[in-house]
Amino acid sequence: MGLLSKDIKTLDDLFVHTLQDIYYAEKQITKALPQMIQKTSDPQLKQAFETHLRETEQQIKMVEQVFSMHGKQPKGVTCPAIDGIISEAQDIIGDVEDKQVLDAAMLAAAQAVEHYEITRYGTLVAWAKQLERQDCASVLHQILDQEKATDEKLNRIAESKVNQRAA
Amino acid sequence: MGLLSKDIKTLDDLFVHTLQDIYYAEKQITKALPQMIQKTSDPQLKQAFETHLRETEQQIKMVEQVFSMHGKQPKGVTCPAIDGIISEAQDIIGDVEDKQVLDAAMLAAAQAVEHYEITRYGTLVAWAKQLERQDCASVLHQILDQEKATDEKLNRIAESKVNQRAA
Repeated sequence: MGLLSKDIKTLDDLFVHTLQDIYYAEKQITKALPQMIQKTSDPQLKQAFETHLRETEQQIKMVEQVFSMHGKQPKGVTCPAIDGIISEAQDIIGDVEDKQVLDAAMLAAAQAVEHYEITRYGTLVAWAKQLERQDCASVLHQILDQEKATDEKLNRIAESKVNQRAA
Repeated sequence: MGLLSKDIKTLDDLFVHTLQDIYYAEKQITKALPQMIQKTSDPQLKQAFETHLRETEQQIKMVEQVFSMHGKQPKGVTCPAIDGIISEAQDIIGDVEDKQVLDAAMLAAAQAVEHYEITRYGTLVAWAKQLERQDCASVLHQILDQEKATDEKLNRIAESKVNQRAA
């Protein structure tokens, strides 16, 4: 079991709890992406989702590395935020018939996921530095940079093509 | 009742559905902020939350204006994403006893809310432009800029003070 919120006494506990939250979130994202890859009709968007799936699998290993650096076993705690974001995405994916509109909806859903990751990794980097865990902060910062780059790539695909085709 | 995802046939439908999603989200945020204001021990963070509550109330009116410009009645649809983000925040708020650690946790929760708003308003601006609704895009962009400014203000408070006090 992960660290429950009632067990949080210190910033270190909060850091570990949030690491468990994002660890769970990353694993849920690897479960959700294959359906999005399958449903996407735009080849560039499909490739972006495929790249992101491989990156997410790599990021799970990097989060495990941070747990290990910090002397903890990798564990997840249920994260209602990512569950909500993914559930909203799946609701749309299951219902929208027009392929171009569906691509625009999936792209927006993927950006909501990215922003959740950006905020959590941003916080984790700040807390790791405050806890004088520069080693953890460095790995978490690498992931943060990847998430920001993915969000920017999705922005470019949306504005250059997907939104125009959906309109 | 709002537009259900099964009723989404066009980018215009998707735009209206996402507007309903963020309308519901903003209203949930106005319900969650008073508890955070009450629980915050840092005066600068408390003031930031108070300012954000007033801004959120104003943003609800601005979203209503966008509905009206687009010829729609303001309506909300349940947004599991914001419900998840707020539920996660409330779980932490209810359980963390140390006031400084609680401030750090609430600040991080508020940033997760901001990032959800940033991604949704970013998408809405892009879709409004694609739909040639420059009037709607302009109002939505004003809200987007406010959300980004709030996130940056929270970053400054975290890094200058709240995280240090929590460590």
